[in-house]
Amino acid sequence: MIGAPNNRHVVVRNIERADLAVASKIGATGAATVHEAIGRRGYLGADLVARQRGARIGGTAVTVLSHPGDNLMIHAAVEVCREGDVLVVATTAPSTHGMFGDLLATSLMRRGVRGLVMDAGVRDIADLNDMGFHVWSRHVSCQGTVKATPGSVNVPVSIGGVVIDPGDVIAADDDGVVVVARNEAAWALEKSEARIANEATTRARLEAGELGVDFYGLRDTLTELGVEYIDALEPS
Amino acid sequence: MIGAPNNRHVVVRNIERADLAVASKIGATGAATVHEAIGRRGYLGADLVARQRGARIGGTAVTVLSHPGDNLMIHAAVEVCREGDVLVVATTAPSTHGMFGDLLATSLMRRGVRGLVMDAGVRDIADLNDMGFHVWSRHVSCQGTVKATPGSVNVPVSIGGVVIDPGDVIAADDDGVVVVARNEAAWALEKSEARIANEATTRARLEAGELGVDFYGLRDTLTELGVEYIDALEPS
Amino acid sequence: MIGAPNNRHVVVRNIERADLAVASKIGATGAATVHEAIGRRGYLGADLVARQRGARIGGTAVTVLSHPGDNLMIHAAVEVCREGDVLVVATTAPSTHGMFGDLLATSLMRRGVRGLVMDAGVRDIADLNDMGFHVWSRHVSCQGTVKATPGSVNVPVSIGGVVIDPGDVIAADDDGVVVVARNEAAWALEKSEARIANEATTRARLEAGELGVDFYGLRDTLTELGVEYIDALEPS
Amino acid sequence: MIGAPNNRHVVVRNIERADLAVASKIGATGAATVHEAIGRRGYLGADLVARQRGARIGGTAVTVLSHPGDNLMIHAAVEVCREGDVLVVATTAPSTHGMFGDLLATSLMRRGVRGLVMDAGVRDIADLNDMGFHVWSRHVSCQGTVKATPGSVNVPVSIGGVVIDPGDVIAADDDGVVVVARNEAAWALEKSEARIANEATTRARLEAGELGVDFYGLRDTLTELGVEYIDALEPS
Amino acid sequence: MIGAPNNRHVVVRNIERADLAVASKIGATGAATVHEAIGRRGYLGADLVARQRGARIGGTAVTVLSHPGDNLMIHAAVEVCREGDVLVVATTAPSTHGMFGDLLATSLMRRGVRGLVMDAGVRDIADLNDMGFHVWSRHVSCQGTVKATPGSVNVPVSIGGVVIDPGDVIAADDDGVVVVARNEAAWALEKSEARIANEATTRARLEAGELGVDFYGLRDTLTELGVEYIDALEPS
Amino acid sequence: MIGAPNNRHVVVRNIERADLAVASKIGATGAATVHEAIGRRGYLGADLVARQRGARIGGTAVTVLSHPGDNLMIHAAVEVCREGDVLVVATTAPSTHGMFGDLLATSLMRRGVRGLVMDAGVRDIADLNDMGFHVWSRHVSCQGTVKATPGSVNVPVSIGGVVIDPGDVIAADDDGVVVVARNEAAWALEKSEARIANEATTRARLEAGELGVDFYGLRDTLTELGVEYIDALEPS
Repeated sequence: MIGAPNNRHVVVRNIERADLAVASKIGATGAATVHEAIGRRGYLGADLVARQRGARIGGTAVTVLSHPGDNLMIHAAVEVCREGDVLVVATTAPSTHGMFGDLLATSLMRRGVRGLVMDAGVRDIADLNDMGFHVWSRHVSCQGTVKATPGSVNVPVSIGGVVIDPGDVIAADDDGVVVVARNEAAWALEKSEARIANEATTRARLEAGELGVDFYGLRDTLTELGVEYIDALEPS
Repeated sequence: MIGAPNNRHVVVRNIERADLAVASKIGATGAATVHEAIGRRGYLGADLVARQRGARIGGTAVTVLSHPGDNLMIHAAVEVCREGDVLVVATTAPSTHGMFGDLLATSLMRRGVRGLVMDAGVRDIADLNDMGFHVWSRHVSCQGTVKATPGSVNVPVSIGGVVIDPGDVIAADDDGVVVVARNEAAWALEKSEARIANEATTRARLEAGELGVDFYGLRDTLTELGVEYIDALEPS
Repeated sequence: MIGAPNNRHVVVRNIERADLAVASKIGATGAATVHEAIGRRGYLGADLVARQRGARIGGTAVTVLSHPGDNLMIHAAVEVCREGDVLVVATTAPSTHGMFGDLLATSLMRRGVRGLVMDAGVRDIADLNDMGFHVWSRHVSCQGTVKATPGSVNVPVSIGGVVIDPGDVIAADDDGVVVVARNEAAWALEKSEARIANEATTRARLEAGELGVDFYGLRDTLTELGVEYIDALEPS
Repeated sequence: MIGAPNNRHVVVRNIERADLAVASKIGATGAATVHEAIGRRGYLGADLVARQRGARIGGTAVTVLSHPGDNLMIHAAVEVCREGDVLVVATTAPSTHGMFGDLLATSLMRRGVRGLVMDAGVRDIADLNDMGFHVWSRHVSCQGTVKATPGSVNVPVSIGGVVIDPGDVIAADDDGVVVVARNEAAWALEKSEARIANEATTRARLEAGELGVDFYGLRDTLTELGVEYIDALEPS
Repeated sequence: MIGAPNNRHVVVRNIERADLAVASKIGATGAATVHEAIGRRGYLGADLVARQRGARIGGTAVTVLSHPGDNLMIHAAVEVCREGDVLVVATTAPSTHGMFGDLLATSLMRRGVRGLVMDAGVRDIADLNDMGFHVWSRHVSCQGTVKATPGSVNVPVSIGGVVIDPGDVIAADDDGVVVVARNEAAWALEKSEARIANEATTRARLEAGELGVDFYGLRDTLTELGVEYIDALEPS
Repeated sequence: MIGAPNNRHVVVRNIERADLAVASKIGATGAATVHEAIGRRGYLGADLVARQRGARIGGTAVTVLSHPGDNLMIHAAVEVCREGDVLVVATTAPSTHGMFGDLLATSLMRRGVRGLVMDAGVRDIADLNDMGFHVWSRHVSCQGTVKATPGSVNVPVSIGGVVIDPGDVIAADDDGVVVVARNEAAWALEKSEARIANEATTRARLEAGELGVDFYGLRDTLTELGVEYIDALEPS
């Protein structure tokens, strides 16, 4: 969770967002690239699964902190979303409920929202696929929700040990979801694109048959660590 | 589990089934729709996963209560299945075994069975895909089984906290599996189709830009619950 | 884990491999078939998941025992791989890290490696799909690794309670991964192909409407076990 | 879940209970004994854990079907409990919330309730220990709940695949929780006590050095199953 | 994780701590009480388990962000700990390693540290018990660690979706671990003690036989929610 | 699993055991100590839990490979056990069944067996406590078993990725279970006792206030790794 200070329930209308062009480009470099480029940080964890194969998005976070099994605050979040946003929903306690479906996706798509990151369950998966609305979630579940409990929109939230502030960059693809702090976005893009460029060179050399163990200078490391090259393992 | 009274092992040959036309139509409305329509009940849970994308079926349950890692009773169940049935297999203790594969699917397809709901593992996934036989299961596993332990066919079983009686309606798609009691089938269909009709209207309005928070009258709820709209979050 | 005797860290350059033609044919019969054919053994478990639909491979194991979150030894393993191998990576403690990505896959594909079995996480899933490099893994994860800790290549390793020796046959498809000991390969192929032949006959008879319960002679078993055929279940 | 027919929310004031003397005696034989005695049925599963060591109770079930994270219906259930009851709480979806604490225990103890079976979380564990109130639960959790959603009291509920009807016998100890149908109580007690008597004899013979493999006549079974006795395992 | 800005690795020597007397008193009210008193926040989740029964502590957080399977930074943290602190260790990726044992506990006890909150594994449990050093951890594990990877001490960390800043109050007992922000400590103590006082009154009334359903005014709620009181459930 | 070569089912009567005095002494040094002393190997993993607090044993392994939910081979193993053995039970597929209870414990205690390591469930926990029979298991469960499927006794088995050969040393305590290969037993004892001696010195120095970070020479490591000591963290 996290939420607003003093335990208030708020909908914050205006947030400062990372530059959308930058966010889009960060997304295009891929979640794993960004994660590496910024120092192996920002990854929301292996349990937040891409629900469509081949999606790759970048955008700016609108955050929701919601009661488990209650999607009232997701409805409240729609009108503060705009072109290029990614909706990020955290819950105050673990939940498997299907808190999001095709009707909410209809509203979000109309506003130009690029996808959903949901730390609980989603449903109407077939419809979401047909609509081309991209979702990363912990669960898929029919289980319906109520609209009865307060929460907040555009407050800091935490998923998988990572804090997401409103306006942060979200990069998501088949490998999962990575968050970049708004004020690190330009730097993260530079680092990520440098990494992409560098990987292209590396790939060419590897394709040409060069070995990573030489390329990365790992033979010395192996020797220092006491790894022996032997022809065969004698029976113990 | 559950099973037959007095701890007997039985194969019940004749069961009263829900009307097949009704069951088919319920299935066509989608599992999440049915679940909502009948009062958020009947969902077998998020761990029973669709093993093919895009399948959507409705049918009548033939139930099996089986020893874990033993598929004898699944074989016994084949001959009591008929056109439009869905085979539902529960076990007396948790099991990851691959209790069902392509040969059993061959037999079931010949009898017009529409799919399998398996509270354990299945295998031959590639063949099942090629055959177009739809499966929802807790696991995928090579692990083979024996044919050595008694169980029952067409007795009440329980999966994910939901009791399935023989002849009940099964609705399954990418969102999971929902069960409708046989004597609630007509009512469930009516409710589900009403919901579908209603959702079409709602979708049109949302696509036109109307907001769910207005549409569903949630602004008053938010106010009553003490949710404040603010322009920005002051630093704590 | 397992590893080399006397707690040494070694890279074993030369291993005796199962005959590659045999390994390929074993793979073609499918993991579940092999598992059954050799006596329901060798299955690495339901948590090692195929990351591409429809892949089916057979090859010879090159093994890696690695520190969790460290892919140094995977780099060291590349040069001992050759045409027809499958890289099998175990860790000394559970890990969700994404220990393998598209660059390592580039090197392995150039050497003719047929796939990866990873008892931890992989990343760059979209790229691996595009490249057609087949992966079975416990996790998908962006989480990056270091290259700092010694381990071994081509020592016995253990995954899911199954020991894999270098040179063993790996058969993997949508159902998971099965290992066949190198010195059982010829026998395993014979058994697996016999099973395939037998299944073709069985399938034809089942398609013709014959029942498995007759076909396998299970009616007597059911009777002996006290299973009763009844017309209806009386209310308890 | 399960709940009342027609999706109603009810508090059923009067239920028919199993004879309390019988229920108490069933509990005293121990959960594992009862489970075996009635045909390996009624066990709520390995995830429902005794929160105090050494407790062993038998009583009659008062059941609650509750929304996850909401303990309103537990409060509603208190007044229908009486001497010898065990409160059994199921939820409509999985929950880790701490739905029960020392104040509810205070009320239940005053009414003579013998314990709680909770298919979610409990809290105030230290206080419950001090009070001597026995609890079996899926989780321990501080996470607080609301009192906002309807549910039912004394309707059939399902936990771990087992249906519990109001008035059924609950037997719980360090091994977990077993349910006996109300109308099987007398028979279950007879079977359980016979088993206890039989085990005393068996234990005496085993203590005297007799072997179970002889005692239970398993040598023939082993031979029939092809198990060979050998002096040593030749290297493969 | 979280960590220092700009991806630096730092040991912060001087932190502002919550008042220790206040922290101690907050701990004494119990984790569940504090969690409720401050608005159902701050709970680290049901997987962080007390490794000794009956411990109850309050103190000020010294935080560590560590590589999984590496306890270098825990060693680095010792000298910045002082009387009344609780060491809180988060990892950059999930880990089951036993990252803490009796020697580290010896050092911490000498400095007056009151306990450990470890988002990974601990070992030497028997020794820790004998020493009376209190531990809350996700795992117990023998698995040894290295001392090779940088991390940080006294930076913000995140466990179970909750951010812990250095100097925050830690309240931990059999129900788990709750964190109170340093600048909310005085308010949290006031709220928690008020709640304790209130609960004493409530308990007395409940012990006298008053019902919570009356006491909390829940009868109206039940009626409004459509819960019906009935004498018996008619068969469906 | 693993089992006998050529897929046979065997009971091996005579095995070579590690010296019992050595095994006992290894056990006395504690599981974590042994694990470290032999190079961080042999640990069966964090899911194999001590079912009694404070037990610490060392002994020689008699191994069982069993079908899940079937304890026939455990009965067959009793007569090959002798003074100082520890029974180690693996299964051919995951199982939560309670495969062992007080009667089997009675037989084993009479033969001088020191404990049980069970890669499935046990039951009669309260009786096992009263008898003082020590158990490490993955689950506690009432769920009963059959005696119907062949397996093997005294063949190599695998638990948690570790291979246990008959006659190996088992060291188990509150931290879990560690296995030492029979032919490494004398060396492992020497290493473990050296470690114990060394830890006594270390503990004395730590108790005297010396810091591990100095004692282990970690300050240079921290500097080389780029860890900075700072007085305060500037706001980002």
